[in-house]
Amino acid sequence: MKTLTVELEERSYPIYIGSSLLGNSDCFLPHIPARQVLIVSNEIVAPLYLQQVKTTLSSLDVHEVILPDGEQYKTLDTVNLIFDKLLQERLNRNCTLIALGGGVIGDITGFAAASYQRGVNFIQVPTTLLAQVDSSVGGKTGVNHPLGKNMIGAFYQPRAVIADTDTLNTLDDRQLSAGIAEVIKYGLIHDTAFLDWLEKHMPDLLARQTDGMTEAIERSCQNKAEVVAADELESGQRALLNLGHTYGHAIETGMGYGEWLHGEAVAAGMCMAARQSEKLGWITADEVQRVVKLIASANLPTTRPDTISAEEMLQHMQVDKKVLDGTIRLVLLEAIGKAVVTGDYPHETLLATLETP
Amino acid sequence: MKTLTVELEERSYPIYIGSSLLGNSDCFLPHIPARQVLIVSNEIVAPLYLQQVKTTLSSLDVHEVILPDGEQYKTLDTVNLIFDKLLQERLNRNCTLIALGGGVIGDITGFAAASYQRGVNFIQVPTTLLAQVDSSVGGKTGVNHPLGKNMIGAFYQPRAVIADTDTLNTLDDRQLSAGIAEVIKYGLIHDTAFLDWLEKHMPDLLARQTDGMTEAIERSCQNKAEVVAADELESGQRALLNLGHTYGHAIETGMGYGEWLHGEAVAAGMCMAARQSEKLGWITADEVQRVVKLIASANLPTTRPDTISAEEMLQHMQVDKKVLDGTIRLVLLEAIGKAVVTGDYPHETLLATLETP
Repeated sequence: MKTLTVELEERSYPIYIGSSLLGNSDCFLPHIPARQVLIVSNEIVAPLYLQQVKTTLSSLDVHEVILPDGEQYKTLDTVNLIFDKLLQERLNRNCTLIALGGGVIGDITGFAAASYQRGVNFIQVPTTLLAQVDSSVGGKTGVNHPLGKNMIGAFYQPRAVIADTDTLNTLDDRQLSAGIAEVIKYGLIHDTAFLDWLEKHMPDLLARQTDGMTEAIERSCQNKAEVVAADELESGQRALLNLGHTYGHAIETGMGYGEWLHGEAVAAGMCMAARQSEKLGWITADEVQRVVKLIASANLPTTRPDTISAEEMLQHMQVDKKVLDGTIRLVLLEAIGKAVVTGDYPHETLLATLETP
Repeated sequence: MKTLTVELEERSYPIYIGSSLLGNSDCFLPHIPARQVLIVSNEIVAPLYLQQVKTTLSSLDVHEVILPDGEQYKTLDTVNLIFDKLLQERLNRNCTLIALGGGVIGDITGFAAASYQRGVNFIQVPTTLLAQVDSSVGGKTGVNHPLGKNMIGAFYQPRAVIADTDTLNTLDDRQLSAGIAEVIKYGLIHDTAFLDWLEKHMPDLLARQTDGMTEAIERSCQNKAEVVAADELESGQRALLNLGHTYGHAIETGMGYGEWLHGEAVAAGMCMAARQSEKLGWITADEVQRVVKLIASANLPTTRPDTISAEEMLQHMQVDKKVLDGTIRLVLLEAIGKAVVTGDYPHETLLATLETP
């Protein structure tokens, strides 16, 4: 088992990465201060792993709530189902919520934990690659609104993140690739050595080879933990982690939540960011091809869906959180391995990027 | 104009108290970092004061949302109406929400500000006495759930609190008295000098005499600001501010939100706390009478409604946030002017207190 720490002073917490962690009470119990626990999971993940976690926590008073699966349920109404359960079972202020599932379960559960009684304890147990390398680390929680993705939420840190690599064996290929999109992101933002490593080891990751997967998760979490420690509330550097996300959110909103996986939309979004960076003269056509080739090698989309128009994309991008006073701030590539946040680009370069599906 | 400061390091903020503040742009503009503003008010307060605030902010891009009036609308659905407006008008992450109204508007708007895009700027403009002396100061925000009051929310500090005493002139007598309940609370908790002052000046307050009212608000806010500065997240001392509230919340839940005003329920709750303290031998029957007499002199109820049974009261108290592992923690009076939080009392003293309406 590897242990990384997200350094946030009194809110610091460990990320455990390894095999057989769901059955390891030493990962859980030190982070649960009182007997009452609510495990939040979904109808896909619960049949696979809920019993194992309940057995590990059998000394405690454990409740459960099983949500429907999918980004389309990442809503305020679903959060309310968790509140209903917490109150029906009379869970108090010292209770602990455990998110057992992918990014959607983690985001919803984290926001419920942030808001129940103005904040209760919370542990992330991510069971998808995407959640293990990205969404479960860093304290971003929240839900979607019909007019925009992740518009409602809180910054709220977990007490611990428990990433059991065994859970990746039950992931379908499409979900696995979606997770790899976020792994590639760290390389593109500021880790060219990791990018080189990924170009060599992509077949190992797609084959779920354990050592390769553990290394990819560890390097991704290390990258993310450093950025989060430096900028918890996303006032600066942390925004770089949104590479591909502004375009990607527009794809997800335009297609309806749940049609494209988040990682798929981000993959296409990163290719769009690379193409716009080329239009700005920041990177070469060859470098764009390097990005596109790596993303394609992970069986991920490299262009936006052609069923959304450029105008629709633009409209959805305008409600993104990164829009400041009308300017759409984008994460672009000054170079491969060097992302920047900027609102200072000719509008035509964005329009031209959106025009090409 | 008086200015107090709530000392919370980088989250410190001023409370302005005085006449004609709604028209004073110097109270508002230094705390609004960007052009986009959403004023949240209700159908009672907006016709009285909205235009005045809009005129004061006429150099900015000001939007408004007018909610129905009453505690029964302090729900997640109402918060969602604010999110709808924020997204329809495309307000970004640098926007400022202004709560113009009583405690309900402040609590709802604060939670919307805490949760919109994971947190935007927020100013409290309380227009009731209760909100000026209590709910607008200290960062407790949130909404009710059918199974319990204030169960969903966040600790989220405003950038400033602007308490214009002129707004109290339009308050009806019942609302005024409800606010005085929270003023009396500060005296009972730890300010006997203020309690003596209140016994002398109650007629001035009921007559809305300006100097008396300003002094009552200032001393109340000073008391509250000190407690909040020492214990922002209510891990200890701050819980004393809940004197009368555990009984009071049970009354509000039992009657249905909105039937009794919050301050009325707290007033009856403080009398119940005094009676239970007497049963514990902590204060004398004469001291209970002193409390009851002061509360009655403010035209406030001193007993619970007889339409709720003792069993119902107990049941509602068991879902209160202050219940830890089954024990109902209460704020009781060790002496007049000295409140304590305790779960360590014979259960019969609570039952006997609840039995007497």
